[in-house]
Amino acid sequence: MSELYCKAETLELRRKHIGPSCKVFFAKDPIKIVRAQGQYMYDENGEKYLDCINNVAHVGHCHPDVTKAAVKQMELLNTNSRFLHDNLVQYAKRLTATLPEKLSICYFVNSGSEANDLALRLARQYRGHQDVITLDHAYHGHVSSLIDISPYKFNQLGKEGKKEFVHVAPSPDIYRGKYREDHPDPASAYADDVKKIIEEAEKNGCKIAAFIAESMQSCGGQIIPPAGYFQKVAEYVHKAGGIFIADEVQVGFGRVGKHFWGFQLQGKDFVPDIVTMGKPIGNGHPMSCVVTTREIAEAFGASGLEYFNTFGGNPVSCAIGLAVLDVIEKEDLQGNAIRVGNYLTELLNKQQEKHPLIGDVRGIGLFVGVDLVKDQQKRTPATAEAQHIIYKLKEQRILLSADGPHRNILKFKPPMCFTMADAKLVVDQIDELLTALEEATGARTGNGKSSTSQHKRKITNEGNSQSDCISESINHINGTACRQNNGLYTDNRAVPCKRIRT
Amino acid sequence: MSELYCKAETLELRRKHIGPSCKVFFAKDPIKIVRAQGQYMYDENGEKYLDCINNVAHVGHCHPDVTKAAVKQMELLNTNSRFLHDNLVQYAKRLTATLPEKLSICYFVNSGSEANDLALRLARQYRGHQDVITLDHAYHGHVSSLIDISPYKFNQLGKEGKKEFVHVAPSPDIYRGKYREDHPDPASAYADDVKKIIEEAEKNGCKIAAFIAESMQSCGGQIIPPAGYFQKVAEYVHKAGGIFIADEVQVGFGRVGKHFWGFQLQGKDFVPDIVTMGKPIGNGHPMSCVVTTREIAEAFGASGLEYFNTFGGNPVSCAIGLAVLDVIEKEDLQGNAIRVGNYLTELLNKQQEKHPLIGDVRGIGLFVGVDLVKDQQKRTPATAEAQHIIYKLKEQRILLSADGPHRNILKFKPPMCFTMADAKLVVDQIDELLTALEEATGARTGNGKSSTSQHKRKITNEGNSQSDCISESINHINGTACRQNNGLYTDNRAVPCKRIRT
Repeated sequence: MSELYCKAETLELRRKHIGPSCKVFFAKDPIKIVRAQGQYMYDENGEKYLDCINNVAHVGHCHPDVTKAAVKQMELLNTNSRFLHDNLVQYAKRLTATLPEKLSICYFVNSGSEANDLALRLARQYRGHQDVITLDHAYHGHVSSLIDISPYKFNQLGKEGKKEFVHVAPSPDIYRGKYREDHPDPASAYADDVKKIIEEAEKNGCKIAAFIAESMQSCGGQIIPPAGYFQKVAEYVHKAGGIFIADEVQVGFGRVGKHFWGFQLQGKDFVPDIVTMGKPIGNGHPMSCVVTTREIAEAFGASGLEYFNTFGGNPVSCAIGLAVLDVIEKEDLQGNAIRVGNYLTELLNKQQEKHPLIGDVRGIGLFVGVDLVKDQQKRTPATAEAQHIIYKLKEQRILLSADGPHRNILKFKPPMCFTMADAKLVVDQIDELLTALEEATGARTGNGKSSTSQHKRKITNEGNSQSDCISESINHINGTACRQNNGLYTDNRAVPCKRIRT
Repeated sequence: MSELYCKAETLELRRKHIGPSCKVFFAKDPIKIVRAQGQYMYDENGEKYLDCINNVAHVGHCHPDVTKAAVKQMELLNTNSRFLHDNLVQYAKRLTATLPEKLSICYFVNSGSEANDLALRLARQYRGHQDVITLDHAYHGHVSSLIDISPYKFNQLGKEGKKEFVHVAPSPDIYRGKYREDHPDPASAYADDVKKIIEEAEKNGCKIAAFIAESMQSCGGQIIPPAGYFQKVAEYVHKAGGIFIADEVQVGFGRVGKHFWGFQLQGKDFVPDIVTMGKPIGNGHPMSCVVTTREIAEAFGASGLEYFNTFGGNPVSCAIGLAVLDVIEKEDLQGNAIRVGNYLTELLNKQQEKHPLIGDVRGIGLFVGVDLVKDQQKRTPATAEAQHIIYKLKEQRILLSADGPHRNILKFKPPMCFTMADAKLVVDQIDELLTALEEATGARTGNGKSSTSQHKRKITNEGNSQSDCISESINHINGTACRQNNGLYTDNRAVPCKRIRT
C-alpha cells in the first residue's frame, strides 16, 4: 500500500541521501508510516499504531476539513503577503482574539524556529539590549540563534556551548528541581533566582533583552511552572528593560484544555510581551506565528528595516490555520483535552500508587509527563526503564516517547482527538510493562534503595535477556542518542528483543 | 469574488493586526489579489495583472499538478521525518540527481532562511572556523544569523550593523562594480579581492568558515558573476579551510534555462560545497533544502547533536517538491526559459540602443535585469525613473519590481511559463514609458551629461505633474522604502498620479 520502495530500500536511500544528524525514531528498527487518520498511524504492512506523541497533528492526522481548506485555497491563490489578502487579516483577527487584548500584532513565519528567532530580534530591537535569560534544559529551535539559547542543545557542545550573553535560570521543576513541592513558595524562590541573575548581569554591564520560556517545558521534561512564577519573573525582567517571551510552540492551541494558551495557567494577571507559536498551528503544514504588542512592533518598525518572509502568511497557510481553529471549536477539542486529560492523569495517578518506578505524574489537559525513578526518595531518573517501556510499547503498536534531561519522562502529547479508550489502552500497557520491570528488577520491594545495582547484576546473570534490551534501548530508541550512520543501524541486529513476560 | 472584506476593511485590519515592518507592494495603493493562474494574477475587481516578479510561483500560479499532488498526500499522511517515508528519499534522490555527484546529502527545511542558517552551521562545524565572507549588497535571509551576513540589510543599521566575523567582498558586478567589462580579467580581479580578505583575516587570527554568494545576486541588482570567478574564490576559500556556499534560493530550479542551477553557469569545473534552495522549490509551499557533501554532513554529525526540523521533509512537502520537478520536465520549462529569456533579452537590447536611460541589460534565461541610468558614461543610477516605471506599469496591470543597492534595476523573474507575447507586451510598455520619460526630462539628447539637474528643474517648473509622481514613487512603491504605518498610507492621497503622456 502506497510504497514505492520496500523498507530496506527506503532505509538504504535514506542512508545515501539524508544527513546523518537527522535521526529516526526507534533507530534499531525504524517505523515506516504510510498513512494516518485521527490518532492512528499505519505502517507499510497495515499495522495500526496509537499515536500518543504527535502534537503537530493537533486536530487529528489528515483532518478532512483542513485538507479541504488547503485545496480550495491552493486552487485559487498562493502568494506572498506584499499583496493584500483577506485570509491574512482574517486569520490575524481570529488568532489575536484568543489572546489578551494587548497581544494584537502578528508576524507570520514558517516554523517555531523562525518564530523564536524573530521574537529575539523584536526583543533586542525594543531597547537595544542583547542578553537573554533562558531556562535550564530549554529547547527553543534549531537555527543558530536558538541553539545559543537552548541548554538542551548547547550543553552537549561542551564548555564552549554557552555564549556570554546567555544566562541560564533553573528550570521551575518542583519535583526534581532546586525548590520542590515541600518549599513554601517555589514560584517566588525560582523567580528570585531570575532576579539574582539579572542583578549579576547588570553588575557586569550586561543588559537583559528577554526572558524566554516555554509556558510548560516540553523537551525539558514536561515541567509545569508553579502559578505566579511568570508574573514575578516578568516584573523583574520588565524592570531591567527586558521583555517576556512565552514559547507556545509545543503547548499552545488548547492542549492544556481549560485555556487556549499554556501561559494562561499562571493566572489572569499574567500577559507575556511576545507569544510564539508553531507545531500544532497548521496541523502539519509548515507555518507559525509571533504575536506581540503594538509598542514592541512599532519599536521594531522604527529601525526602518522591512521584515519580509517569503512564505509567511500566504493565503494557503492562513486558510489552513483558520480551518484548524474551526475544528478545535467545532469538535470541542479543548473540552476533550480536559475530559480525556483528566482521565489519563487519574489513571496514571492510580498507577503511581501501585508502581515504585513512577516518581511523579504531572500534566494538564493532553500534555502529561510520567517521571520514572529508580528510587522514590532519591528520585534517581530511571532512564533505561523509560527507554525500555517506550520500546516495548512500540512493539504493542503504541507510540510514546521519553524526554527530559535524563530522558526518563514518559511524554504524552497526542493528537487532540485522543479518547478515553486510548488513554485506558496505553495506561494498561504501561501497567503491565512496569509490573514486569519491577518483578524483574526487584523494585517492587519498594525499600527506598536504588535498584540500579540489583538491576545490573540481573543483566549479568541472564545474558542476552530483557536487560540487554533495556540497555540497548537507551542507545537506540530515541534519535538523540543514536550516532550511527544516518541514525540507522547498519548491523544485522534488527530483531527486537523478546518481551519480558507474557 | 472571494472577498470577505472590502479592500478598505482589509487595509484597516492589516494596520490593526500585522507588524508595521511587513510592507506591501505599492504602499500608496496596494493591490489586493484574490486569484492567480499561470503568469496572471487577478484583483478583487477581476482585473488581470501580468506577473513578471513572482519567481516563487515557479511553474505557474496554482499549477493543477502541484495542487493534485498536495491533496493526494494531505489525505494520506503528513508527519515528521523521524518516521521512514518514501517521498523523502525519492525526493532526495531526484533532487540530488540534478546536481554534481558529490552533492549527495540533503537536509529538508522550511524556508530559504532556514536553509542558509543551516548552511552556516554546517560550515562552522566543519573545521570549527567562524568567519564568513559575503558579497556586498547580498541578502541571504531574515533570521538573525543571516541579517548578520547580509549587507543589503545590515548596512541600513549604521556602523554597528557589521559584525567582526563578517568580511564583505566586492560584488562581482562588471557593469557598476570595481572591475568592469573593460577589465582584461574581472573574474580573477574580483577573486583576488577575496584572497586579500582571507589573508587579512588570517593575519588578524580569524579563520574563514565559509564564503557565501548567490549564484547570481538578486536583491543585489541582478548581478551575473563573470565565469571563472567562483572557481578561483573556491580555491582560495578551500585553502583557508573554509567552504563555498552557493545560495540558489532565488535563481535555482532551471530559471537560467540552459542549466538547472545558476552556479553551473561558471563552468563544469566548479562545484560548490553546499547548495541552498528555497523560493521556487515548492511553487509557494513553505519548503526548502540544503544539499552538501558526505564529508561535510559527517563532520556535522560528529558533534552528536541531532538535527530535527519539525516540518522539514514531511511527505506533503516532498510530494509537492516532486510535482514541481515533474512539471519543469513535462512542460520543458527550462527550454521555455531559454527561448523566452533570449527573446526578452533581445527585445531589451533593442530598447537599449534606443533609450539612453538603459545603461545595461543583463540576464540569463528568465532572470533578467535592466540597469537604468541617468547618464550613460557616469552610470548614475536612475532610481526615481526606475520606480516611476514600476508604478506606471502597475497601472497598466503589469507587475515588475526594481531592486539593487540603488533600486534602479528593473528586475524580471516571472513564473517559468512566461511567454514570448508576455515579453513583448511588457517591453512595449517599457518602451513607451521610457520614451515619455526621456521626452519629459530631455534625456533623449544623449549628450553624455547627467540629466539630473535638468530633470530636477523640470520638476520645479511643472509643479504637481509627473515629476511629483516620480519622486513619490521613490518613497512609496517598494515596501523597503515605506516607513508608514504598516507600510500603508494613512492619508487620503490614494489617487494615482496621471500618466505622463497620451
